[in-house]
Formats: sequence, structure tokens, C-alpha cells
Amino acid sequence: MSNYKTLDAADIAFIKNIINDPKRILCGEDINEEYSHDELSDTKSWPDLVVRVLSTEEVSKIMAYAYENNIPVTPRGAGTGLVGSSVPMEHGIMLDTTLMNHILELDQENLTITVEPGVLLMDLAAYVEEHDFFYPPDPGEKSATIGGNISTNAGGMRAVKYGVTRDYVRGLEVVLPDGRVLELGGKIVKNSSGYDLKDLIIGSEGTLGMVTKAVLKLLPLPKKTISLLIPFPTLSQAINTVPLIIQSKSIPTAIEFMQREVIIDAEKYLGKKFPDNQSDAYLLLKFDGSSEEEIERDYDDVAKICLEQGALDVLISDTEERDESIWKARGAFLEAIKGSTTYMDEVDCVVPRNRINELVEYIHSLDQEIQIRIKLFGHAGDGNLHVYILKDELSDEEWEIRMNKAMDLIYAKAHELEGKVSGEHGIGFAKKPYLSRSLSTDAIALMRGIKQVFDPKNLLNPHKICQ
Amino acid sequence: MSNYKTLDAADIAFIKNIINDPKRILCGEDINEEYSHDELSDTKSWPDLVVRVLSTEEVSKIMAYAYENNIPVTPRGAGTGLVGSSVPMEHGIMLDTTLMNHILELDQENLTITVEPGVLLMDLAAYVEEHDFFYPPDPGEKSATIGGNISTNAGGMRAVKYGVTRDYVRGLEVVLPDGRVLELGGKIVKNSSGYDLKDLIIGSEGTLGMVTKAVLKLLPLPKKTISLLIPFPTLSQAINTVPLIIQSKSIPTAIEFMQREVIIDAEKYLGKKFPDNQSDAYLLLKFDGSSEEEIERDYDDVAKICLEQGALDVLISDTEERDESIWKARGAFLEAIKGSTTYMDEVDCVVPRNRINELVEYIHSLDQEIQIRIKLFGHAGDGNLHVYILKDELSDEEWEIRMNKAMDLIYAKAHELEGKVSGEHGIGFAKKPYLSRSLSTDAIALMRGIKQVFDPKNLLNPHKICQ
Repeated sequence: MSNYKTLDAADIAFIKNIINDPKRILCGEDINEEYSHDELSDTKSWPDLVVRVLSTEEVSKIMAYAYENNIPVTPRGAGTGLVGSSVPMEHGIMLDTTLMNHILELDQENLTITVEPGVLLMDLAAYVEEHDFFYPPDPGEKSATIGGNISTNAGGMRAVKYGVTRDYVRGLEVVLPDGRVLELGGKIVKNSSGYDLKDLIIGSEGTLGMVTKAVLKLLPLPKKTISLLIPFPTLSQAINTVPLIIQSKSIPTAIEFMQREVIIDAEKYLGKKFPDNQSDAYLLLKFDGSSEEEIERDYDDVAKICLEQGALDVLISDTEERDESIWKARGAFLEAIKGSTTYMDEVDCVVPRNRINELVEYIHSLDQEIQIRIKLFGHAGDGNLHVYILKDELSDEEWEIRMNKAMDLIYAKAHELEGKVSGEHGIGFAKKPYLSRSLSTDAIALMRGIKQVFDPKNLLNPHKICQ
Repeated sequence: MSNYKTLDAADIAFIKNIINDPKRILCGEDINEEYSHDELSDTKSWPDLVVRVLSTEEVSKIMAYAYENNIPVTPRGAGTGLVGSSVPMEHGIMLDTTLMNHILELDQENLTITVEPGVLLMDLAAYVEEHDFFYPPDPGEKSATIGGNISTNAGGMRAVKYGVTRDYVRGLEVVLPDGRVLELGGKIVKNSSGYDLKDLIIGSEGTLGMVTKAVLKLLPLPKKTISLLIPFPTLSQAINTVPLIIQSKSIPTAIEFMQREVIIDAEKYLGKKFPDNQSDAYLLLKFDGSSEEEIERDYDDVAKICLEQGALDVLISDTEERDESIWKARGAFLEAIKGSTTYMDEVDCVVPRNRINELVEYIHSLDQEIQIRIKLFGHAGDGNLHVYILKDELSDEEWEIRMNKAMDLIYAKAHELEGKVSGEHGIGFAKKPYLSRSLSTDAIALMRGIKQVFDPKNLLNPHKICQ
């Protein structure tokens, strides 16, 4: 948009004055290339200025100044996003939250933890576990910030039993595009006091306001955890077993599926052997609970179902070491696939969990049809699939054609199966065309209207989601 | 507002033509007095026309017509609200959903149930339990509709462990003020596809759109339930024990507190004895789980804590009959208190659960100070308090003065304790002044902006929440 102001020397001087610490302000040549993109998307655009903010007050002052002067602002956490949400499409100011990484309060009476947005997911998880608490959301990318997790409503492996990030955010402090600071929710458990602004911010990918503090709900740490690795002769047998597991009412914490080729990628990437790589397909299940007997009862039932459905074995992992080796491999899938090709793009669609097999079978038919390599793995228990389309040695031109064709077909199929464009990675910049094709024009118009209410000048993270 | 059109004969004829069933259209003298108010609020206003709708299509057609002609529309479920949300302040058309009471689909593979908005909570609960499933939200008022529960984000007793209505709504079909039909969410478990319109509708008290269908999440039915009734010498001892229970990490399903005087009201109202009424104060706890041993471990720990804190006894209720007698009494508190006075008004504030004792002690000091009878009970485990201010034999004038003084002081105290105006009953018409004093003007302005986006002519349920 042409009415954005390009940062000039006076603007930079003003911001330097707010921050009063030259090490936390980067401009021009000093800006690391990483700030121009995120983890996967080829969306690329440089900020004019990066400010490594330390406080709500700094964020508020900078945003107020930017608002007055029509300067675009883009928030950024650890940059682990996959759809370009944190890429500053109109340049301007980037607010890097990674130094706002303090855990502010563990409140054992209210079972909440209050954190700054730059706290890393892995640090949060370790901290609460030390205190015998549990923060259930468990996205694969542990080095993401919690602010980033809130902005995309990140899901992760444990959604089957525990839900997603949204379910664990009790309160937010948010800076609006014009610098005003808003408190939403709090330590309260129930709230029916007006429209739910908190949930509107969650998943809005930094387009409605910038999260500067979060009050998160904790659970008591389950006393015992056991994983099952279950080889199947075919992927479709594995996935078709999932609805039967769900129906059995012994709900696992996580139900992941994986194929041999992805496991072999992970072995190569990590330089470590996976407990088993002889079968074509696997289900990986986790159970947790307050006692071994309770978990055993649950997994006995589920193991029986799997064997009835043709599982080749049920490998039980009840030691921490073995558990870690399995889940570490699972956590490395994205990086491992990335390492197996020259370039890739991804689809993060979600369908009702009993439709996932249809989607997987359809996607597997595309390799041949489009002549492009596709790998996938995913959260079988919650219908969320991660599909990677690989460039390999294709020319840029062929890649564009085939990749776009594959994307179009996969998203259309997910839509047909009553699914959505994104289960947990968000829309950002890269997935906008698919969102607008998948949602009704009425829904898109409401979203644009809401953006307008929060950000009438469209200065905060422009060109994202529905803009 | 002066630009609303008053229904005339041509309008009524048009709507009769849409409905084509005279028995489902009431106007003038035929409108039952009940349609002019809800369960508690003295907010009173008559609709010009009541339509007992049967389908989304009827709702959509009527709303499209009303929108074109500037006629206000107010949705209504069973009318069990407590803040006037379903009272048609500008008259016009009332859409009664109670005939849209069909359970459309139980999907055992996705653990969802799809229902029309007029299904009663008690019917939903009974239906899913028959199929060995569990719909956790458990508001005291079982004859509310599920549409009403969604509109106020109803909470209930089990919020301590299971959360509130919002946590169980996976998808909604909503008719917008101008008649367009919107599908939000679905059977999917995860969703990061644009702004969270679904959660904006939940708790919006029928001001942004009218819910015509809901996909609800179910859980497997816990195999075993046990309740503990724990008498304490004083209420403050009882309530001060709650944070210790929470800290013990043996989280009960429900933690309610009650006082002898309310129990005696309930005994009178039900004509049945409560298992114990000798003590001043009680905690009522429920535990559920997959086995007796699991629950026993949990409640043993909690019973020990209560006795250490001065509990006089721990009465265990593990038969269905005894359990029902206790929880039925608990469920009758509102009606029982209502029956004990000439008229009353209520406060439904929520505070962090470790602040509830401060609030209760403060409220108990007000009886004397203001010379008005106040009774209360509540969800000690989630900080949600129900306070009833009783008119008794006060003159209307004195009642207004004292009741308003009590309300002002209670809401101010809840705000001071970092609480909110409503935990689960909503704002509606009656609590608007308290909401606007409790939220920032920035938050209110955003809510008004959102209302404007959904309903630019302010035709759907006007004068509610923030209008």
C-alpha cells in the first residue's frame, strides 16, 4: 500500500531514544538475513529496523509512534513459523520478542503460569515439569516461543486428549496497533463478560495486537507415561485403526502415524537408529495417567484392537531413554524431510479424524499423477496432516507448476472432506489463497471487518490471513 | 432507537407465509406473558410477534426480511436466563428455538454430537450417557437449551476439571443478522484457519448471530463417580481449604461450597432432608475417573487435607441415590432461595479461585452494613460465586436503593480482586452498567466495533452487553 511511510533517520532516532540501548536495535547492514524469512516459506522481505524489545512499555511506545506515522510493524518470535506470518511484507519495524523471555509467576493456587511472549516452549515445559506441573500443548517445534504458539494457536501431539494452545490461555496482555495496552481474561476459570476478545487474539498471527504477556493454565503432571510403537503392514491399516481406538474410549494422549521412508530420513538426520524400521507403517501412541495400572488397562485394550486390525507387533516403551529416542525421532521429521531434498513446501490441513485415511490415500495417488515426490506424517488422532512436497532436482519453473498443482488438489480434497486449510501452522502470507478459497466470502468479510476494527490503518503485520 | 420499524399487518402476513403453520406464530393477545421476561431479571418487554421456528431456513428467511425492513429480532431458548439476554427490548420479532430440539447425529468416530439449539441440557446429558458418553458442562439449570448455554458460555459445576461450554463447541451453524448462514468450525479437533469467529459467537448472547446448529465434543463417560460432603465449623475454613485441595494435584471434578441456611431453604423447597444440616458450612466435592481405586487415591488425599484444616467429618456418597439427593439439593439452590423471599436479584461474579474467601467475607459484612439479606453459594473450585440479594418486605424504593448499593459494592470488590462481572450467566441487559465499569473503554470500543461488523443496523437483540 502506497501510504505506508518508509522509515527515515528521524524515525530511527526517535526509536533509539525509546530503547536507549544500541545493542537492541538493528538496522541496515546489521540486520541478520534470518529476519527476512521464517523456517520454511519462501516468503521473503526485509525489515528496515529490528528492535529486540524488553517490555510492554517499549512495545507500546514504538507501536504508538508507528501508528501516528503510518509505519508498518511486524512482531516476530523465534521465527520458526512455516507460512510467513512473521515476515515484514511492507518492511518497517520488526519487534523481536526473544529477549522478553522471563517466567513471571508460577501460581500454584490457581494452577497458572504467567510468562513473557519470548519464553521458548521447551523452557516452559522444563520449568513446569520441575515443579511437578504439566503444560499439555506439545508442538513438534520446541524452540518456538510461546508468543508464537499463541499467535498460531499451535496444536501438537497431545491434542487428542488435551486440546491445543487456545485451551490453555487464561489471560493475555496485548498491545493494540496504536499502542494502547489491553488486558484480556486473567487467572479466572470462567468468564462470560462480553465478547471473547481473548480467543480472537489467539490464532490471529500478530495481526490484531501484539501479545506481551500470557497467563497459561497448567495441569498436575501425570505420574506415569508409556508409549507404544505399533508396526502395520500398510499405512491404510494403521490409519483405519484410529477411529476404532477412539471408539474404544481408552483415549491416548497422542496418536501419530509414520511411514518407513520418513523414519529412515530421521535416522539419517539424527544419526541414530529408530527402535524399528522394518515395517511400512507405524502408529505411535502415548498414554498418560496417574498410575501404571490405569495406563496398562487403557493400552491393553488398544493393543488388542491394533492386533485385531493386523498390527505386526506392539512395542512398549516404558523407559525414559527409549521413549526419548522414539519421540525425538518423531520431533525431527520436519527437519529430516527438509534435509532429504533441495527445497520443499508444506500443507498443514486438518480433516475430521475418521476422514484422514481418504485424504492420505488421495495424496499418495498424487506422486504418480503429478510426478513429484510427496512425504507426509501426522497427527492421526486429531486428523491433522503434515504433507511435504519436495523439489528435489526439478527446475524452478517445473517446481512451481507441479507444486501448485499438488497444493491445489490437496487443499480441495481436504475441503471436500469437511476439513480446513490449517490445523496448527496458520495462514500467514503463504496460505492466503487457499484460505480465501476454502472459507465463504461472508466469513472472510467478517474477518476483514474485525481487522479493520482493531487496526483501521492496517499497520500491524499487513498482508496476512485475510488482508 | 427511532428508526426501528414497528411490525404491521403486511409484515405479519409475510412471515406467516414463510412459516405456513399458524400454530407456530403468536401475536398480540396470544403471546404468553413468559415471553416478556426471563427467569430472574425484572427486565420486561414484549415481543410483537413470536415465531416458533423449526429450521435454519425459516430463521434465515425471517432474519433476511427483518433486516431489509429494520425490524428488531431477538432469539430465545427456554427463557431460563438471569440477566435479560432474551428479552426483546425493542419488541419486534422473537424467534423461539424450543421446537428445534432434535439430536441430529452422534458420531462415535469423531466423538461429537450434532444438535439443534433447542435441545435441553438434561435431554442432551441423558442421551449421551445412554450411549456411554459424557458431555461435561453441567450448569445448575438443566432445563436450559443448549443454544442458550452456548450464547452465555454457561459453566456449571464441573468446570474445575472439565472447563466450560466453550471448551466443548467444535462447530456452529449461525444465521447472521441479515439472514446469511455461516458455518464455523466443524468436526475437526484443531483449527488455525483465520480469526476465531466461532468463539466470538459463543458467549455473545445472541447479539452477533443466531445459533441454529452445534457440533459438540464428547468424552468417554467416566466409569465411576463419588461425592464427598464435608462439614466445616465455619465457611471461611471451608473455602480456605480449596486452594490446598487444588495444590494437592488431586483435582476434583467439582468443588462447591454451601451454607446451612441455603441447605435448609433447599430442604423446604424439595420437601426432602439433606444428608446433613448440622454444620455452618460444607464443601461438596465430586471425583470421577476410570476406576474406584483411582478415585479413592484422589479423595483419600483430599479428605486428609480437609480434616487437617478442621473439617468435622467426611461423608462419602457412593450410591446413586445418595448422590442424587445431594446434587439435586445443590441444583435447587437458586429456586429454593427464590422461594424464600418476595423478590431477588443476583450477582454471578468470578474471581481467581484463591481470592474467593476474601470476596465471601466481604459480602457477609454487607448484610449488616446495608441492612439487606444476602445469600450465596457457589463454585468454590473455580472462583465463581452466586450471590442473591433478597427483597423480603422492603418497599420498592428501599429495595432499589439497598440492592443497587449492594451490587455496586460487590462488583467493585470482585474487580479489585482481579475478577470479572460474570462467570457464566452473561451480561444481557441487567448487568450492562457493571460491565462497562469493569472493562476498559478500549475493550468496550472493540466489542462495539465487532457488533457493528456483524450487525451494522443493530437489529439483532439490541441493547445487550455493550450496546
